[in-house]
Amino acid sequence: MKRLKLGMIGGGIGAFIGDAHRRASRISNEYTLLGGVFDVDYERNKEFAQLEEISPDRCYRDIDAFVAGELALPEDKRIEVVSIVTPNFLHYHFAKKLIENSFNVICEKPMTLTVEEAEELVRLVEEKNVTFALTHTYTGYPMVRHMKELIKSGILGTIQRVDAQYYQGWINTLIHGNESRITGVWRLNPEYAGVSSCMGDIGIHAFNLIEYTTGLKVEKVLSDLNSIKDDVELDLDGTVLLRFEDNLKGVIRATQVAAGEENNLNIAVYGSKASLKWEQENPNYLYLISDTEPTKIYKPAHTYNSDFAEASHVMPAGHPEGIYEALGNIYKGVAKAIKGEEGFDGEFPTVYDGVRGMKFVHSVVKSNKSGNSWVELK
Amino acid sequence: MKRLKLGMIGGGIGAFIGDAHRRASRISNEYTLLGGVFDVDYERNKEFAQLEEISPDRCYRDIDAFVAGELALPEDKRIEVVSIVTPNFLHYHFAKKLIENSFNVICEKPMTLTVEEAEELVRLVEEKNVTFALTHTYTGYPMVRHMKELIKSGILGTIQRVDAQYYQGWINTLIHGNESRITGVWRLNPEYAGVSSCMGDIGIHAFNLIEYTTGLKVEKVLSDLNSIKDDVELDLDGTVLLRFEDNLKGVIRATQVAAGEENNLNIAVYGSKASLKWEQENPNYLYLISDTEPTKIYKPAHTYNSDFAEASHVMPAGHPEGIYEALGNIYKGVAKAIKGEEGFDGEFPTVYDGVRGMKFVHSVVKSNKSGNSWVELK
Amino acid sequence: MKRLKLGMIGGGIGAFIGDAHRRASRISNEYTLLGGVFDVDYERNKEFAQLEEISPDRCYRDIDAFVAGELALPEDKRIEVVSIVTPNFLHYHFAKKLIENSFNVICEKPMTLTVEEAEELVRLVEEKNVTFALTHTYTGYPMVRHMKELIKSGILGTIQRVDAQYYQGWINTLIHGNESRITGVWRLNPEYAGVSSCMGDIGIHAFNLIEYTTGLKVEKVLSDLNSIKDDVELDLDGTVLLRFEDNLKGVIRATQVAAGEENNLNIAVYGSKASLKWEQENPNYLYLISDTEPTKIYKPAHTYNSDFAEASHVMPAGHPEGIYEALGNIYKGVAKAIKGEEGFDGEFPTVYDGVRGMKFVHSVVKSNKSGNSWVELK
Amino acid sequence: MKRLKLGMIGGGIGAFIGDAHRRASRISNEYTLLGGVFDVDYERNKEFAQLEEISPDRCYRDIDAFVAGELALPEDKRIEVVSIVTPNFLHYHFAKKLIENSFNVICEKPMTLTVEEAEELVRLVEEKNVTFALTHTYTGYPMVRHMKELIKSGILGTIQRVDAQYYQGWINTLIHGNESRITGVWRLNPEYAGVSSCMGDIGIHAFNLIEYTTGLKVEKVLSDLNSIKDDVELDLDGTVLLRFEDNLKGVIRATQVAAGEENNLNIAVYGSKASLKWEQENPNYLYLISDTEPTKIYKPAHTYNSDFAEASHVMPAGHPEGIYEALGNIYKGVAKAIKGEEGFDGEFPTVYDGVRGMKFVHSVVKSNKSGNSWVELK
Repeated sequence: MKRLKLGMIGGGIGAFIGDAHRRASRISNEYTLLGGVFDVDYERNKEFAQLEEISPDRCYRDIDAFVAGELALPEDKRIEVVSIVTPNFLHYHFAKKLIENSFNVICEKPMTLTVEEAEELVRLVEEKNVTFALTHTYTGYPMVRHMKELIKSGILGTIQRVDAQYYQGWINTLIHGNESRITGVWRLNPEYAGVSSCMGDIGIHAFNLIEYTTGLKVEKVLSDLNSIKDDVELDLDGTVLLRFEDNLKGVIRATQVAAGEENNLNIAVYGSKASLKWEQENPNYLYLISDTEPTKIYKPAHTYNSDFAEASHVMPAGHPEGIYEALGNIYKGVAKAIKGEEGFDGEFPTVYDGVRGMKFVHSVVKSNKSGNSWVELK
Repeated sequence: MKRLKLGMIGGGIGAFIGDAHRRASRISNEYTLLGGVFDVDYERNKEFAQLEEISPDRCYRDIDAFVAGELALPEDKRIEVVSIVTPNFLHYHFAKKLIENSFNVICEKPMTLTVEEAEELVRLVEEKNVTFALTHTYTGYPMVRHMKELIKSGILGTIQRVDAQYYQGWINTLIHGNESRITGVWRLNPEYAGVSSCMGDIGIHAFNLIEYTTGLKVEKVLSDLNSIKDDVELDLDGTVLLRFEDNLKGVIRATQVAAGEENNLNIAVYGSKASLKWEQENPNYLYLISDTEPTKIYKPAHTYNSDFAEASHVMPAGHPEGIYEALGNIYKGVAKAIKGEEGFDGEFPTVYDGVRGMKFVHSVVKSNKSGNSWVELK
Repeated sequence: MKRLKLGMIGGGIGAFIGDAHRRASRISNEYTLLGGVFDVDYERNKEFAQLEEISPDRCYRDIDAFVAGELALPEDKRIEVVSIVTPNFLHYHFAKKLIENSFNVICEKPMTLTVEEAEELVRLVEEKNVTFALTHTYTGYPMVRHMKELIKSGILGTIQRVDAQYYQGWINTLIHGNESRITGVWRLNPEYAGVSSCMGDIGIHAFNLIEYTTGLKVEKVLSDLNSIKDDVELDLDGTVLLRFEDNLKGVIRATQVAAGEENNLNIAVYGSKASLKWEQENPNYLYLISDTEPTKIYKPAHTYNSDFAEASHVMPAGHPEGIYEALGNIYKGVAKAIKGEEGFDGEFPTVYDGVRGMKFVHSVVKSNKSGNSWVELK
Repeated sequence: MKRLKLGMIGGGIGAFIGDAHRRASRISNEYTLLGGVFDVDYERNKEFAQLEEISPDRCYRDIDAFVAGELALPEDKRIEVVSIVTPNFLHYHFAKKLIENSFNVICEKPMTLTVEEAEELVRLVEEKNVTFALTHTYTGYPMVRHMKELIKSGILGTIQRVDAQYYQGWINTLIHGNESRITGVWRLNPEYAGVSSCMGDIGIHAFNLIEYTTGLKVEKVLSDLNSIKDDVELDLDGTVLLRFEDNLKGVIRATQVAAGEENNLNIAVYGSKASLKWEQENPNYLYLISDTEPTKIYKPAHTYNSDFAEASHVMPAGHPEGIYEALGNIYKGVAKAIKGEEGFDGEFPTVYDGVRGMKFVHSVVKSNKSGNSWVELK
């Protein structure tokens, strides 16, 4: 095993998501973090590098210095793949620069702020032929992967309804407390978060999970969003009607103001013969229900699972792995791709998933603004 | 205790819902079944009466004979209250006749086929001053009643989202098997079932549960329905966006084609301070979630519950009561009303709930037909 | 259908268990309560009879009057079966008298206070050839019955371990509050409750459930009991090691002082190929687990269930039936036996189960007194 | 942050538990693995070192070479702490050697094979004043730590019963398949596993969890063990009655032959006022039940938790962390101890817990051999 040389943009002191990515990279045992631009504040940047025992000469002042510095190194010393874990509005800028210089990229979602930016990244990834992964972390759970495989096997018959929800409550504490907190939170500021809060941050995960597990494409959406309070600009809550081909219908429900909900993402896919249900907060249980047989619960680390599911879990049955391991699985998939090893279909979300996500968010916002009419995802 | 004299229209041999009503009446210990019209086929009608040890002279040939026969009896022998447990399209006809003749009525839902019929029943109930109950059975569960009481107490803060679902799968076996079964099932035939299958049969329960527990009124709906197969006339599946006053939004999802779902009715009401969740298949658990305190699970037979909840459960804690007892609670509430005893607010759904239900179903169907536009419930 | 004529001893005003029996008899739709001795206090006895609309001449002053009065009636008017729902210490006396006079009997558990009394009832039941049922209510649940059938089918392979628990907490409120309450509670008084509180009242249910579902017989026990407080004479808590034939081992755990536990009876039977688990508080779920297949959940009202299970549930799937219906199923089984209809094996616990229960309780108490040594159940 | 220099004994290619320790060390972000003796087979040892990118000169042939080699390095280059992840019978030998040479040690459980060996390690740890941790991994879960803190706070009142179980089923596949597999598995061979299989491997975890969470000491035990098959020498199943001071009683149940059980470790502590329940397979839920208040569910990442619990979880609420993170928490605690940072009481199990575990296992085996009599843990 030869560990991949990892760089990181963002994710400095106190950054929650950057920490998650570093843990995941270590869990996968496929990466060594060697350098990056961890903070726009250069002093904090250097402080963080020291904490992480990163060589000072690879703690770069900005993205340009990063690219120049790394390209100046001999190829076998150079950082091969870079994780982008900044706020949303910076993803595009950094991803573009890195891909243009042939770095492989692991990017947090949402990939960009606009569909156009997303499509530009597709163009670049194809041109430069790099590996690009988008961290829809939940696709890294073994039972989500097994759900994908079971659906692919045809066990559900014809899919007749799709239903996903993503309910959180944490924004309540912001909007119902001191008003000034609303403006202070970047997720509620269109400049940094883009056109949507709830749908852009979490609804997009539900959307991705639907397309990931079913292999189907949403064709159009009709949404009803809610910003809850007058002084909030973006949506904090909403329901989205979905239409697929062949008259298949579905719904995504998402909210950030469901008091007491933690991170309640779940998905149910209903077929003519059977249905599958999965919940993120208890990720190691996958339920297959049918009208004619007892409910079946699939759990990781069993011979009855698909190879893809089993390759995504390490411990023996009954030893719960969690969200860091899910993200670690995505990191592992990226490593396989970079090394040219054969992987499973769906080991990490791609730049094309990023385009789908942007189309979803923008269509949903457009539908809501247009008085809840149907908008196509194109 | 003096048991009420009960009559029944419909519910003869093999009738599932009539049996449930009789059991509920016996569980409540407030009724004695004395007569009725149990079947349109007079021979089967008499056969059933014999099985139930009902006096042959009170097994009537039809509703007119029933009314005439009972009115001919001295008042202290006469049936006081009549349960209507026929297919949907007959509810109105029988209810009207019975109310006009001053019988108290317990009617299965949906109350009528049209809003106009429902409003006519309101007029008659008010004119004749009888007790009229609509058996939205789920409102009889102790934890649903406690949910109503907790919401009334203000524990949730401002309600910010309402979400109810009713998922079943049993119609799959009809529509995917022998095609001819579709026409043979009265629930799929507009003539007998009315304008809707899924929304009229089960979506209406979710709607009722929302208005029952929150005390709020849905102002308008936007629906997307699905009949799944070309040869099915009525909706078997759908999603309904809800708007209440003060910008409150919500959603009802209902389907009869979710393979493997049994009777999965549930409701969640999300407030600014806390939220409540309840599921029909595990009816003795009510969840209060908040961002600042551990999740709380309320169960029946505890001093911490509201009086209304406690009056709706008999056994000590941990002895599960179920759906028959829920329906029994409604029968008990009706008995209290007829006897003039003081009851709780909400011990049985009324003729006004019946009107609301009809408005819901017709608005939902209209919205779907109009290309998924908003339709007011008026 | 011809309803059976039911009598009752005990169960007057305020009696919780008598009420449960009456509800169950009504749910089964197989009985009409015609008379009895409902209270030792004759005034209260008469008051109760009036409330229940029972004819005054069949509200008897005592058991002798009951027997004499009923025997004086023509056979087709006479009460055919009598429910005994008095405190434990009176069961034997009443049962003996009734069986001697050829009444069929439904008796609350524990059947008697001593093994000798239990065996005397066996002798009488055999001599008089009456139907005698012991209401171990939990055997009436459809999924307990399905568990019995699945085990009988051999699906578990060789049984390797048996584990049952019955945890309650309600006695805490008696023993930790006002001391004088201890003496006031008949369940804590050896004169009325017999040699045991916890094991005699609830451990015996766990024992019965083991023998009922597995068809195996416990051969010997080793117990460690705990009365928790110095001024409590009887056990309130304990663990019982079990030995069956062929080196099979198991354990029963029971307590009345587990604060917060409601009525947490559960059983797990572990085999070499698979295992079954069931919990009373969620009685409509039966779990089959194995090392090679996904966990399966059996629920009532499905074609995949055994005939016995399906005959024990009425409503369609997902409509929860509860403990009254379980007791109702036992009443229904008794009715079939009295009428000579063919029933399932195990539709009601018998006088022989009563003997087993007495042997269990007395062996457990003896083991504890003897310094936790093995005691055979003989 | 300065990462600690980590060594490892055992845990080479294909070793499941060694991999878990390495992942945990990486998750904690407090260690860098620099060398060790990963395999008794030197070629495989070297192969593993290469895979892990470990410098060849620190891949030692055996423990003596390891000690000599590391001691020859300047102190600031030297490995500071060594994880022992070999089969049970080698723990003592390696731990002794390492402690004698003043290395800090992280040792898998069971710590030794005998009580005498365990006590010798205590003597050495005290003499050499090193940090010694025993990886009872389950004590690293945030909700187990919160359970400890809640019990310490007195919230339960007087503890009245303690009940822990550890059920697995995986050994079924060994003993019921090809007989020769029994002799091939080191866990079933007394020479390598010690005097017990089930109690030594998993019962000991349940025991540790009881003493860890309650702070109480088991005084004596009475056990009934079962080796299930004639050709199995060690226990595969058993029940252990527990006695604590002040007449507190409890029970541990453990089995490796419960077909279908995965890793079902759970614990319940029952008090006079309230009780706490936790299950390893759903580790992020801690249940507080009482007779007077709704059940409360504690989950990680909430301000209502104890500081110790919150320091043991990183992600926001609803993002499940699992068993690797639990072990990582123990590694983190060890790092704090080695660096002299202030930690919480109970951040890692110690050499004294190791002695308790050995006393438990040996007392249990002795009790079983003696015909199920009481044996003191001394």
